[in-house]
Order: sequence, then C-alpha cells, then structure tokens
Amino acid sequence: MESGPDAAVLARSEPAEITDKRLLRGAKTRHTVLRYAVDIASLDGLDGLSFGRLATDSGLSKAGIQTLFKTKEALQLAAIDYARDMFADAVVEPTRSEPHGVARFRALVASWLAYAETPLFAGGCFWVANVPEQDSRPGPLRDALMRDRQAWMRILERELRHAVTEGEIAEVDPELTAFQIDAVLWATNTALRIGDDNAMPRAWRVVDSFLTSP
Amino acid sequence: MESGPDAAVLARSEPAEITDKRLLRGAKTRHTVLRYAVDIASLDGLDGLSFGRLATDSGLSKAGIQTLFKTKEALQLAAIDYARDMFADAVVEPTRSEPHGVARFRALVASWLAYAETPLFAGGCFWVANVPEQDSRPGPLRDALMRDRQAWMRILERELRHAVTEGEIAEVDPELTAFQIDAVLWATNTALRIGDDNAMPRAWRVVDSFLTSP
Repeated sequence: MESGPDAAVLARSEPAEITDKRLLRGAKTRHTVLRYAVDIASLDGLDGLSFGRLATDSGLSKAGIQTLFKTKEALQLAAIDYARDMFADAVVEPTRSEPHGVARFRALVASWLAYAETPLFAGGCFWVANVPEQDSRPGPLRDALMRDRQAWMRILERELRHAVTEGEIAEVDPELTAFQIDAVLWATNTALRIGDDNAMPRAWRVVDSFLTSP
Repeated sequence: MESGPDAAVLARSEPAEITDKRLLRGAKTRHTVLRYAVDIASLDGLDGLSFGRLATDSGLSKAGIQTLFKTKEALQLAAIDYARDMFADAVVEPTRSEPHGVARFRALVASWLAYAETPLFAGGCFWVANVPEQDSRPGPLRDALMRDRQAWMRILERELRHAVTEGEIAEVDPELTAFQIDAVLWATNTALRIGDDNAMPRAWRVVDSFLTSP
C-alpha cells in the first residue's frame, strides 16, 4: 500500500473504526445494564441499584459498569431516563393514532392500565415504586421523577381539556380531574400487585364517572 | 427475718421483681427502638431497617436490639404494628368526638392531611412509603400493611355510608368514594413532600366534590 493522503485517511480510519466499535459495544452494554437497572429499581427502588447488584444480575463485570456510569447517582439518573423512554414508547406512543379528546384519553388510561397489569418493569410502575422513596429527598433524582410525573399529567389534562372544549363531555376541571384519575391509577397499580380482582373494573368505573355526557 | 410462708413469698418475689424490672427495661428499650424504626422505615422503607442502623440511630447496642427482636422480619412486623398504633392514636382517635357522617368524615380527612403535613413519621405517611416497596412481595409484611390500609378505608367508607343513609349528602358509592379519596390523600402526601403549595386546597376541592347536598 502506497504512502500518501489516502493511506493517511486509512491510517486515521482504522483507530476511528475501533472507536466506533467500542462506542457501539459501550452503547450496547449501557442498554443491557439499564434494562436490568429499571427492573431492579421498579422492584426495590433506586436505592437498591448498585454496581455490584447490576453485575450479578447482568453477568457483566462490575468494573465495566462502573466505567460506563462513573457514579451511583449518574446510574440512577440514567435509569430514570431509560424508564421514561420505555414508558413513552409503550404507553403514550401507541395512543397517537386516536383522535384528541375522549378517544385519546380513554386510550391513554387503557394503555396505562395494561402497563400496570402486564408490567413493562418487573415491579410494576417505575414511578409508583420510586416516587415515595425519593419524595422526602430534594435533589436531581426527585426532580427527574417529578418532571416525568408532571409530563404524564399534562398529557391527560390536555385530552380532557380537548374533550370539554369540543363538547364531548360535561364540564370538568381538566387539571383537577387529571390529578384525581392519576391518583386512582396509582392506587390501581397497588391493587393489581396484590391480586385484587376488582382493580380493573373499579378503575374504569372511576374514569367513566368523569366522562359523562355534556 | 423469719422463715415461713411470708419469707417464701418474699424469696420468690425478689427474682420476680428483678424480672419485672428487666421486663420494664425491655419494654422501654423496645419502645425506643421502634420509635426510631418507624422513622427509618418512613424515610427509607422497611428494607432500610437493620439492627446495625437502629443501633447507630438510637445509641443502643446492636446485640441488645437483636436479642429483643430476634429476626429482621420480626423487627419489621413490630415496626408496622407500632406505626399502626401511632396512626390510630394520632389520626383516628381525635375524631371520635365528632358525630358519625359528614362531620366525622371531614374530621378524618383533616386529621389525615395534618398527619401528612406535619409528619408523625420523619418521612411522611408510613404506608405511602412502604406499600410500593412491599406490594410485589407476597408475605407477612405485605399482609400487615394491606390489613392497615383496608382498615383505614373501611373507616372512611363507614362515615360516607352514614352520611348517605342520613341524607346528609347526595348518593355516592361509599366504597368507591373511599377508594378515590384515599387515592387522592396518597397523592397529596407526595405533593406535600415536594412542597407543592396547592396540595391542601386541591385535596379539599376533591373531597368537597363528593360531599354535595342531596
């Protein structure tokens, strides 16, 4: 092979390719670790997350995981972001085909209840499991969890507002109703965990009670 | 001192007296330990309870605490019972002076909100903190926590039923309404933890919306 500009490019591209592979391997490891992390955090809370536990569960080396995330807090924050993305993909995205208003609102509730019943995370809702653990502790973990909670409630609120504005349902306060229905979804998550057969019909009775004809 | 029946009583009573003192000391230590235990469990969950942590927090010896409670599970169950007694004394008992129906119901809600706002336990509501941790794990801890939850909801339900029967409020399903209001109290506990100024007025707006004139 000749020496010259092309060779120089090739020479540069070889290490670059290795770096790409390393990045790819890093991204894949990150994905694997975080998939285990969100399950652990949904079962035992973000406090239960440790490099050691993750190494045991995933079969990856503790040192490798530590290199990837540096600190426990960075790992916990990454787990929250990962859980939020999984939630958005599994619960919110599939409802986008429904028109705004009652149809989208009911689809969101159905989607959330399906998410609580056949858990996306091993321990049921990630936020139900972690908000109570973190809510007495100001800091980035609590902020990240509450940001996700607020975003979810704004989504419910928007559809309720649309339903009221379009005359689909009788007047309700969208913010207060979203708060109440969200509270009932949380209670339903617990009821499902303990095997309460009445959990689902009860949740729908509450939801329907807010969606009355105008 | 003569020998005889009296002496025999005295002879028996001396060790008995020592035992009483020991029992008393044991009961006092138990009380001290459990007071720390419920605070720890309200902040970090029942999982966060350990003989070591309790020894550090209370200044008592780890061996002494271990002798008293034997196992971690026995300690956790004792903490739940202790929290339930504290809750009954602080939240339910003071409402007994109110007549059954709307008055008692509102007193119970006010009492619960005061309990969440100026926490009886360091981390806010003991059950809000622990039910999500335990609800995926069948066993005596979960059973004890759910027994307390059910008892509280039955208390709310009873007063709502009375209010409906006596024509104090418009017809509601007492069980479903108790479930909804309890769900809102839980959500309010979290809102109070994160310093949401709207938490209290919002909770009362929801409660009032169920207590309408017949």
